[in-house]
Amino acid sequence: MLKAVQILGCSSGLTIISQRLTKSSSTVSFLSKSINPLKLSTSPRKTTTLCFNPTRMSTSSLPGSDPVPKSPTFVAGDVRKIKFCQWCGGPTKHEIPDGEEKLRAICTHCSKIAYQNPKMVVGCLIEHEEKVLLCKRNIQPSHGLWTLPAGYLEVGESAAEGAMRETWEEAGATVEVVSPFAQLDIPLIGQQTYVIFLAKLKNLDFAPGPESLECRLFALDEIPFDSLAFSSIYVTLNLYLEDLKKGTLKFHYGTINKRPGSSPSDIRAFSLDYHLQP
Amino acid sequence: MLKAVQILGCSSGLTIISQRLTKSSSTVSFLSKSINPLKLSTSPRKTTTLCFNPTRMSTSSLPGSDPVPKSPTFVAGDVRKIKFCQWCGGPTKHEIPDGEEKLRAICTHCSKIAYQNPKMVVGCLIEHEEKVLLCKRNIQPSHGLWTLPAGYLEVGESAAEGAMRETWEEAGATVEVVSPFAQLDIPLIGQQTYVIFLAKLKNLDFAPGPESLECRLFALDEIPFDSLAFSSIYVTLNLYLEDLKKGTLKFHYGTINKRPGSSPSDIRAFSLDYHLQP
Repeated sequence: MLKAVQILGCSSGLTIISQRLTKSSSTVSFLSKSINPLKLSTSPRKTTTLCFNPTRMSTSSLPGSDPVPKSPTFVAGDVRKIKFCQWCGGPTKHEIPDGEEKLRAICTHCSKIAYQNPKMVVGCLIEHEEKVLLCKRNIQPSHGLWTLPAGYLEVGESAAEGAMRETWEEAGATVEVVSPFAQLDIPLIGQQTYVIFLAKLKNLDFAPGPESLECRLFALDEIPFDSLAFSSIYVTLNLYLEDLKKGTLKFHYGTINKRPGSSPSDIRAFSLDYHLQP
Repeated sequence: MLKAVQILGCSSGLTIISQRLTKSSSTVSFLSKSINPLKLSTSPRKTTTLCFNPTRMSTSSLPGSDPVPKSPTFVAGDVRKIKFCQWCGGPTKHEIPDGEEKLRAICTHCSKIAYQNPKMVVGCLIEHEEKVLLCKRNIQPSHGLWTLPAGYLEVGESAAEGAMRETWEEAGATVEVVSPFAQLDIPLIGQQTYVIFLAKLKNLDFAPGPESLECRLFALDEIPFDSLAFSSIYVTLNLYLEDLKKGTLKFHYGTINKRPGSSPSDIRAFSLDYHLQP
């Protein structure tokens, strides 16, 4: 789906004021430790727990980190940009409704509230004879860089169905979804959650769709880590390779927090926080 | 968060025309096979794969099922209800944009497209000394029925943070998120995805928030399966008990498809399709 990928991972124009400090004891960081991620032996793949302290109830503050005040100028998903009711056309006011805690856009005519929620990006990590299928992007952002086939989940489809649809649209590939592999939240930039499934090709008939310049099967030691499109793809492929080295593929949950002030194009400027596994 | 739970799981008023037929070989069904879910020994907990056949590209059609035509009157998330642009207030038109496949609401003034996407409901399955924490709902739908603390993910927070926040708001409980436990998509009703984490109480200081009448730790053989609020909670608790019986807690992905024509309050009128595990 064109629109999904046009915005996918795009962080330019967003002003992130809130700074999320990582809890070092529970952080797995890929921060440019190595050019070859196969050599990322220094990253402890520890399972950890995430604690909640109600005395610091800001969502931008975690136990073990310095408290960070809620910022009134947090721009990602800024509710103040919602100026009209999409149902009746009435002008909105921006208030915290009774019983809630967040600023919302409320219609001054019909009183409906326009809620904003993070979006799911669904995709496939396709394995075929010890190779993985990647697509070179034909759209911005990250034009010309490599990615997994992925895009926004649509209403009326499951995450697995959406991942297969995106794979068909971007790589012309017919796949079987085999198992869930990762959920990677990116709460501060783009307000996205990546849900990635392991999948297998049903046949070798794949070809780039309009959003892709090229689709190619890469041997595991030839994955173009220096030309990947997004941090989420970098993390997913690293976790996959590390699992393979250990001999077992597991499900991964984690939060990707970009390093404050880093360029959106610097896909290694992040920490993978609160990496949890079953 | 009040609003989240007020809509959570609500399916009344939705007209579901599209009928999703289950693929029997890959279906795990809890369809009223037993009053006591602990005795659900007939349900095969097989891991299966989900296939995508591009010749049947409707998202309401799956290989192995009868093809179901796309319905123009699919009401859940109906884009036609979006009549105005929320950014500039201009009237919308409803068309399929170039390069896309779905009907969208497009502003006739500024040309922006109002995309609709499924929402994530995040929650905690809290274990404490072989008991689980449930909340009796003080709001509709399912007022007076038992649920896990859960609600809509907000922008700016990770799924684990959202699950802890909801737990605090609904049960006054401070928890540690231990691991991801389940992703359950409900694509046809409510357009939701449940993301449930296993969690542990940090202490025994919990008490019902405004959305709960009561919060209580239930022994595993006393879980009120006849008084649960939603199918998603029924599935989650069943999977948990079955995992415990097997001696290992795993991550579960699945799709909950309500039985066509069933009452929203009949939480056992569903099939759990495409149950996948790592």
